[in-house]
Amino acid sequence: MTQAASPKPAAPARKFIEEMKGSEWVKGVYAILNPQLGRTRAEKPYLRCLIGDRTGEVPGRLWSVDENFEMPREGFVLLEGETQTYQGEIQLIIKWVKQVEPSNDELRDLVPCSKRPPEEMFAELLGLLDTLEHPAMKALAKVYLADEILISAFKRAPAAKSVHHAYLGGLLEHTLNLLKLANAVCPLYPKINRDIVMMGLFLHDLGKTRELSYDKGFGYTDHGELIGHVVDGAIMLHDKAQLVMREHGVRLPPGALVVLQHIIISHHGQPDFGAAKVPMTPEAILVSMLDNVDAKTTIALSETRPDRPGDFDAGGNFTEKIWALETKLYKPDPLK
Amino acid sequence: MTQAASPKPAAPARKFIEEMKGSEWVKGVYAILNPQLGRTRAEKPYLRCLIGDRTGEVPGRLWSVDENFEMPREGFVLLEGETQTYQGEIQLIIKWVKQVEPSNDELRDLVPCSKRPPEEMFAELLGLLDTLEHPAMKALAKVYLADEILISAFKRAPAAKSVHHAYLGGLLEHTLNLLKLANAVCPLYPKINRDIVMMGLFLHDLGKTRELSYDKGFGYTDHGELIGHVVDGAIMLHDKAQLVMREHGVRLPPGALVVLQHIIISHHGQPDFGAAKVPMTPEAILVSMLDNVDAKTTIALSETRPDRPGDFDAGGNFTEKIWALETKLYKPDPLK
Amino acid sequence: MTQAASPKPAAPARKFIEEMKGSEWVKGVYAILNPQLGRTRAEKPYLRCLIGDRTGEVPGRLWSVDENFEMPREGFVLLEGETQTYQGEIQLIIKWVKQVEPSNDELRDLVPCSKRPPEEMFAELLGLLDTLEHPAMKALAKVYLADEILISAFKRAPAAKSVHHAYLGGLLEHTLNLLKLANAVCPLYPKINRDIVMMGLFLHDLGKTRELSYDKGFGYTDHGELIGHVVDGAIMLHDKAQLVMREHGVRLPPGALVVLQHIIISHHGQPDFGAAKVPMTPEAILVSMLDNVDAKTTIALSETRPDRPGDFDAGGNFTEKIWALETKLYKPDPLK
Amino acid sequence: MTQAASPKPAAPARKFIEEMKGSEWVKGVYAILNPQLGRTRAEKPYLRCLIGDRTGEVPGRLWSVDENFEMPREGFVLLEGETQTYQGEIQLIIKWVKQVEPSNDELRDLVPCSKRPPEEMFAELLGLLDTLEHPAMKALAKVYLADEILISAFKRAPAAKSVHHAYLGGLLEHTLNLLKLANAVCPLYPKINRDIVMMGLFLHDLGKTRELSYDKGFGYTDHGELIGHVVDGAIMLHDKAQLVMREHGVRLPPGALVVLQHIIISHHGQPDFGAAKVPMTPEAILVSMLDNVDAKTTIALSETRPDRPGDFDAGGNFTEKIWALETKLYKPDPLK
Amino acid sequence: MTQAASPKPAAPARKFIEEMKGSEWVKGVYAILNPQLGRTRAEKPYLRCLIGDRTGEVPGRLWSVDENFEMPREGFVLLEGETQTYQGEIQLIIKWVKQVEPSNDELRDLVPCSKRPPEEMFAELLGLLDTLEHPAMKALAKVYLADEILISAFKRAPAAKSVHHAYLGGLLEHTLNLLKLANAVCPLYPKINRDIVMMGLFLHDLGKTRELSYDKGFGYTDHGELIGHVVDGAIMLHDKAQLVMREHGVRLPPGALVVLQHIIISHHGQPDFGAAKVPMTPEAILVSMLDNVDAKTTIALSETRPDRPGDFDAGGNFTEKIWALETKLYKPDPLK
Amino acid sequence: MTQAASPKPAAPARKFIEEMKGSEWVKGVYAILNPQLGRTRAEKPYLRCLIGDRTGEVPGRLWSVDENFEMPREGFVLLEGETQTYQGEIQLIIKWVKQVEPSNDELRDLVPCSKRPPEEMFAELLGLLDTLEHPAMKALAKVYLADEILISAFKRAPAAKSVHHAYLGGLLEHTLNLLKLANAVCPLYPKINRDIVMMGLFLHDLGKTRELSYDKGFGYTDHGELIGHVVDGAIMLHDKAQLVMREHGVRLPPGALVVLQHIIISHHGQPDFGAAKVPMTPEAILVSMLDNVDAKTTIALSETRPDRPGDFDAGGNFTEKIWALETKLYKPDPLK
Repeated sequence: MTQAASPKPAAPARKFIEEMKGSEWVKGVYAILNPQLGRTRAEKPYLRCLIGDRTGEVPGRLWSVDENFEMPREGFVLLEGETQTYQGEIQLIIKWVKQVEPSNDELRDLVPCSKRPPEEMFAELLGLLDTLEHPAMKALAKVYLADEILISAFKRAPAAKSVHHAYLGGLLEHTLNLLKLANAVCPLYPKINRDIVMMGLFLHDLGKTRELSYDKGFGYTDHGELIGHVVDGAIMLHDKAQLVMREHGVRLPPGALVVLQHIIISHHGQPDFGAAKVPMTPEAILVSMLDNVDAKTTIALSETRPDRPGDFDAGGNFTEKIWALETKLYKPDPLK
Repeated sequence: MTQAASPKPAAPARKFIEEMKGSEWVKGVYAILNPQLGRTRAEKPYLRCLIGDRTGEVPGRLWSVDENFEMPREGFVLLEGETQTYQGEIQLIIKWVKQVEPSNDELRDLVPCSKRPPEEMFAELLGLLDTLEHPAMKALAKVYLADEILISAFKRAPAAKSVHHAYLGGLLEHTLNLLKLANAVCPLYPKINRDIVMMGLFLHDLGKTRELSYDKGFGYTDHGELIGHVVDGAIMLHDKAQLVMREHGVRLPPGALVVLQHIIISHHGQPDFGAAKVPMTPEAILVSMLDNVDAKTTIALSETRPDRPGDFDAGGNFTEKIWALETKLYKPDPLK
Repeated sequence: MTQAASPKPAAPARKFIEEMKGSEWVKGVYAILNPQLGRTRAEKPYLRCLIGDRTGEVPGRLWSVDENFEMPREGFVLLEGETQTYQGEIQLIIKWVKQVEPSNDELRDLVPCSKRPPEEMFAELLGLLDTLEHPAMKALAKVYLADEILISAFKRAPAAKSVHHAYLGGLLEHTLNLLKLANAVCPLYPKINRDIVMMGLFLHDLGKTRELSYDKGFGYTDHGELIGHVVDGAIMLHDKAQLVMREHGVRLPPGALVVLQHIIISHHGQPDFGAAKVPMTPEAILVSMLDNVDAKTTIALSETRPDRPGDFDAGGNFTEKIWALETKLYKPDPLK
Repeated sequence: MTQAASPKPAAPARKFIEEMKGSEWVKGVYAILNPQLGRTRAEKPYLRCLIGDRTGEVPGRLWSVDENFEMPREGFVLLEGETQTYQGEIQLIIKWVKQVEPSNDELRDLVPCSKRPPEEMFAELLGLLDTLEHPAMKALAKVYLADEILISAFKRAPAAKSVHHAYLGGLLEHTLNLLKLANAVCPLYPKINRDIVMMGLFLHDLGKTRELSYDKGFGYTDHGELIGHVVDGAIMLHDKAQLVMREHGVRLPPGALVVLQHIIISHHGQPDFGAAKVPMTPEAILVSMLDNVDAKTTIALSETRPDRPGDFDAGGNFTEKIWALETKLYKPDPLK
Repeated sequence: MTQAASPKPAAPARKFIEEMKGSEWVKGVYAILNPQLGRTRAEKPYLRCLIGDRTGEVPGRLWSVDENFEMPREGFVLLEGETQTYQGEIQLIIKWVKQVEPSNDELRDLVPCSKRPPEEMFAELLGLLDTLEHPAMKALAKVYLADEILISAFKRAPAAKSVHHAYLGGLLEHTLNLLKLANAVCPLYPKINRDIVMMGLFLHDLGKTRELSYDKGFGYTDHGELIGHVVDGAIMLHDKAQLVMREHGVRLPPGALVVLQHIIISHHGQPDFGAAKVPMTPEAILVSMLDNVDAKTTIALSETRPDRPGDFDAGGNFTEKIWALETKLYKPDPLK
Repeated sequence: MTQAASPKPAAPARKFIEEMKGSEWVKGVYAILNPQLGRTRAEKPYLRCLIGDRTGEVPGRLWSVDENFEMPREGFVLLEGETQTYQGEIQLIIKWVKQVEPSNDELRDLVPCSKRPPEEMFAELLGLLDTLEHPAMKALAKVYLADEILISAFKRAPAAKSVHHAYLGGLLEHTLNLLKLANAVCPLYPKINRDIVMMGLFLHDLGKTRELSYDKGFGYTDHGELIGHVVDGAIMLHDKAQLVMREHGVRLPPGALVVLQHIIISHHGQPDFGAAKVPMTPEAILVSMLDNVDAKTTIALSETRPDRPGDFDAGGNFTEKIWALETKLYKPDPLK
């Protein structure tokens, strides 16, 4: 085994996954995914896992596992080890590993996050919400924006466990995209009520702040599995609508609460996709379709024209089948 | 026209539909359904409608319609007319008709209602709720029962717009049936949590008090169409759970609120049947299946072995296709 | 029969359907739809039909039908008759009727057409095609625009037999809408190839110029039923691509022809909706979704907020079930 | 390899799987499942399999496989070997292995069976059949009970190859559960014919005695795959009904045979779930739904609240997706 | 009413429907379908029905209905009346009507039947069964052919209640067609077992002799609705297989009975189309597909190229949607 | 490792896979499939792949992989190695390997092909096309047969990437089968237009010559994935129809082109199976069903009664689930 031969322990240091080369000593806090006890042919147990940070993932192995070994859980670990490389692929031979709770600073390096800073995106979103015209909509937006816990989560939550916008800040980025999309599309349909569309898009996924856990890797909370962001968003609006009157003395016009709740519970479009009702107003239909446009276009572009070309590319002109799109994709742009 | 020949106007009186014979004068308040302007071959307009009360319906016709005629809306009317009979079928030739709002006493005669008195059924239901064992469940039941507006609507609401338990008191009757069913079934499954099942059944359809309008005929409210009793029941529980702590100083055990909300939003079993989540606990699965057992058994029995035999019976051994069961039914009981 | 009593024949004149009142004599060329031989109770035959022009339709009846009567076919007729009104509904009692071929001037009054003049919309579309950047796309657009027969049909054809944009000029209006939509949306997705999207949208429905007949009423041609605009559009592009090289000396980049054909045959999104392939490039996916956005938003708005309010409005807050949307719609705008 | 180091061969003995600890010598008859020839990295062949008895299963390995080795088939084997343990998981290093046919006594230890003794359950079932009231139903029950081969198989057969009641005696246990369920539920629906429901439930799965093989592991017979218990149960009833007249001089009332056959062939509820007809009588509908209630409740409880807690528990609050329920399950009981 | 004016009663006589012209007196036994009590605008009751024989159907009306009138049931009637014609359509104004049971001779004129005489088709079928090679298949065929009641029904039964081969002798004609089809197709697949295919086709629909009633009009028996020809054919084979041994001393090869039963219960191809199992042998698959080929080709040809051209032809190049084919059909043969 | 022990290197030679025994040296050109870099327990990389020719496939391993090793791509290689055998299974221990482009002679040995020589099948097909009667059909056949590039591809292409007729010459064999099937079946349906059926079958899959690549292994071309043989066949006919007039002075009868194009685009029967239109003429329906009969019968027979018995046979009476048939198959022929 090659690690036996490695003579130069040097000073091990924290390295980002994407910077790792072969035969280096590394030490630092990383995410650990899917830790499992493997067994060699000689029936010796060993640890198999993925070691990651916000820049990528590599396979990890720890060979010297005995009965006292404390198996790490999915989450974060402090570890020391040596990188190996064969045929251009890196893996990490772990020497020792210990479960830790990372500091906030460390976390920023460990979990993938949006390219644009959340605050910058949030400022742009505030600008778009500022274009709401109806006083009741303005008041309702204020009530939501005044909920600091919610807004803090909104800036940080991913938009999905995987598939699209699955990174810290992803929910904000997806919501902002949709508001910009509506801003561009609404003028083409003068009879659409732009305020309802904009507010509906702002609210449609806010339940995800409770549905997803994103402190270590992304997953669903029990609450998310059993209730879901669709119903939860409607309950949240039920509470906020009461605050609008209490705090701003503004009464939501009759029908406005029910129409916005309807947009939230119908935005998945069909019962089979998780909608509790099918969209039954022009605004609900448009919200549901714009959500689809942004999600699918974003997935299709990131799968065919990724930022870091070459990643996971198995060659050929087609991707693997992408489940969210129910098809594989043709990658070349014929005019480029 | 035959009505021209009828010589004996006698004193017209209120008669229940099921008591009507041919050639009688009637006068009174009735429900009017599906009023439409027909047109004779000679292009003369006339009023076609159904005239009904809690005992049944007959076709109605008013021939002398001119431009001043005020078309009645679906609802209730005071009318005078004469019954006719051909081949055993009754219809009502209306002389004049006027829209009215019935008094509460009149209403009782006009809208179908459950055979058992609501108060009697409600007492039986209280007895079953009294068997709840966990203090938090007891406290939650108390909070619901203390909501007078809700309970008053619960005693009065139908369980559906049509199909099963579509009469005043039907929601209470259906809920009571289910509690009795669970009471009989739970002992066979010792690991099931009976309190959760009983409470889940009590709550599962309470949103229907807001979903259905039942003052004149039965229909869906706008709120019912756009939000629905499934999501609305979950919102109602969100509010009630806060009262449990505030008013009884009892804390719902962690998970109890979410599990009960889950039962409410999953009790239709599948997304295509209106469930916002599929049932994911043993209790949610049992609630959903018992609801089905009661609804389908009740429909099948009332279609094949009705209380008033002969009603609408087209002869033959099979009923028409019954949409809720997706099949026609074979009527004979081979052992009778 | 009431028409016997009408004393004032006056000078009958061409009247638009929307202007008709009761008890007027009319004479002129109209569209006739669904002509059928009815039979009175006394077994006398009569003609039932709809009489229409671009402003609407009314029921028509011709009572004096004998064995020499020449039954009109669906299409256009010259007729004379008298209007009747009951309860605000107009119908036309036809005195005589004769099949005719309308002149082009007459046609303009008979068939519904887009509100904006076709030439004005076409000029706007030319402006958008002018923004294409790749020389091969520019050359391909030129080849299509040089096909006078095609372009003349393109300006005139409806976008559908019914449901959305079902009027002369509807295909052009729908295509223009989509180009404007893409113009607004593409900048939000920098990696999308705008030229492919714009060209794909321009071409996606051109097969409809052969699929639909629209000279008298709108219908499908045999060719349209058996082949359809989806495959036909791909065949048309196959021919045009050969002209690009032959006439402009420009070679379509490898892959460009196949990717554009793919967009045409996949733009219905799913096999069940008529797609011969599912969309497999980001541009094909976006084209298919934008087509959906425009079609559904247009339908939803015209059903809930029609230009001529009151038309066909049965009252209540919900429309009838709209098949293209698989739901009924809630009509009120709660902020208005 | 660690087994080389094990010094203490002691007297090997038969041990139940659930009692095995590390470093013990065992010898005895076990079930062998899924025997396969693996190959080490050094391309040496070895035997991989599961070794089981009624108390559980462990992985088995036999390393010294040469060309004379006789590969065992799925079934039963006599073997000798040594247990090993790592991280709490047991596996069996087999020294030698030989196919055997177990004696009946040995079988009892090898195949999982119901917790309650079959004779005890059968006695309870007889008691319930004794409550049948109609003489023809009583006679029919007698004919079935007099078929010793059938009843012997009925007491022994599992109710399914896997998923629910998949153990010896499972068919009897499932049938008994259903009779008890019907006994509790029927009184709530006075119009239901209890005799038909009880008899239908007794017969509904009897075809499984021919559909499943259960002498060694559970599987489908060829007959079961090609015909199935649904049709086979109907054929069996066809034969038995002839015996009722011949042996008891009792004539089944007209319609009773066909209605019971209908219950058998319809009890899966829908064609997609294996029903040859959909249930078309109230009793057939109730039988089909009660079957569902017992199957799904039993699965849900055994997956979330197993008798031997900890078995296969991967941690977390949710189970894996359970295919028979089309969902994963939430395990905690929030009131416990 | 025009019938009052008809002066020439002449000698009324039995006429076939297809020979009827206007203004003739007819008297004779006819089939009566869908008898209903209509009501004129003046609320006078009258009888509406279809009057038919094997050559076609015409609408019938009887105007003078009073309270003593005995409403005929669907079946056969002796009647007298006068034909009327308008615009080429015939109808029958009935003077009086009386329910009768037709003699066998009369029946032959009343119910549609196959063009070829049943005996001629049956002889051809015997010739094809004679080509069976395996002695067990020969013996099985003999047992079926010796069942005189079955064979008499087989020669007479229709193949369906409607849609394809819905006439007396239709089951025989469809079965014969399939044997001829298999005779032509099997030689192309040398590995197929021709005996199994031929025997499977002979047996596949024999259960229809019990499923359909065809004495007066065609319908399903209760037995047919609740059990169906698919399961019933398997039960019949169960009985016949026992006779093969008892009467011919020939033992069906192991597997032959189950494979033929499998063909019978799987020949509808999919559960949704009524198959109790999907076809799982090459012969079962071929039987199921040939059944489909004959049924669909026969329907498509009779709808587009009927024997009596012009029947029900609404004009245009397309038929109405044909439900059995889930599409409308294009009628022209472009090479004719 | 055992290969170290093999003493007799002899003269290595090309051997067909089906002839390989253990402990032989082989050298020659083979197909290589699914080449992957594995990693031993000791983390040493090695090459895993399948090595094949037209007679079968065996697993291949190359152990001595270092950083200079050039990984072969899927395609063809020259290699030298030694066979090993354990328990009757062969594998190839590769010593060295080099990517090559095989000569045409070599290719014939490497890729599976039809049993009958293509030229012999093609001659039979020409004979069947010669039976076309209509001059326009004869002319159209001539135009296709004169396209040498197309016909050369037609003789060589497989009919599918896998599943049925997946070998060189498979498209020709499948097409020939279908023409023979139609030749046998059409006489049973006198009203069918045999010329249209025969021509439709000849053309229906010709688009596969462009859809599939078959030079090295079988796959889809990009063109095939994005457009498909269904639409491509229709475009090809569009071009050929123009040649019929130009080169033969024969005009296709009106409707003939559209009906044949319709057959091509509808031959998959349903949108979900890839049809761009459902079949709407009797001939289109028959073509689609015969295609199905040949494909499914061929699959079912080759899976249950293979030419080389024992291949991949896992024992038992049932095959694995066959996806194209959506079921597993029962293998025994009960009369053999």
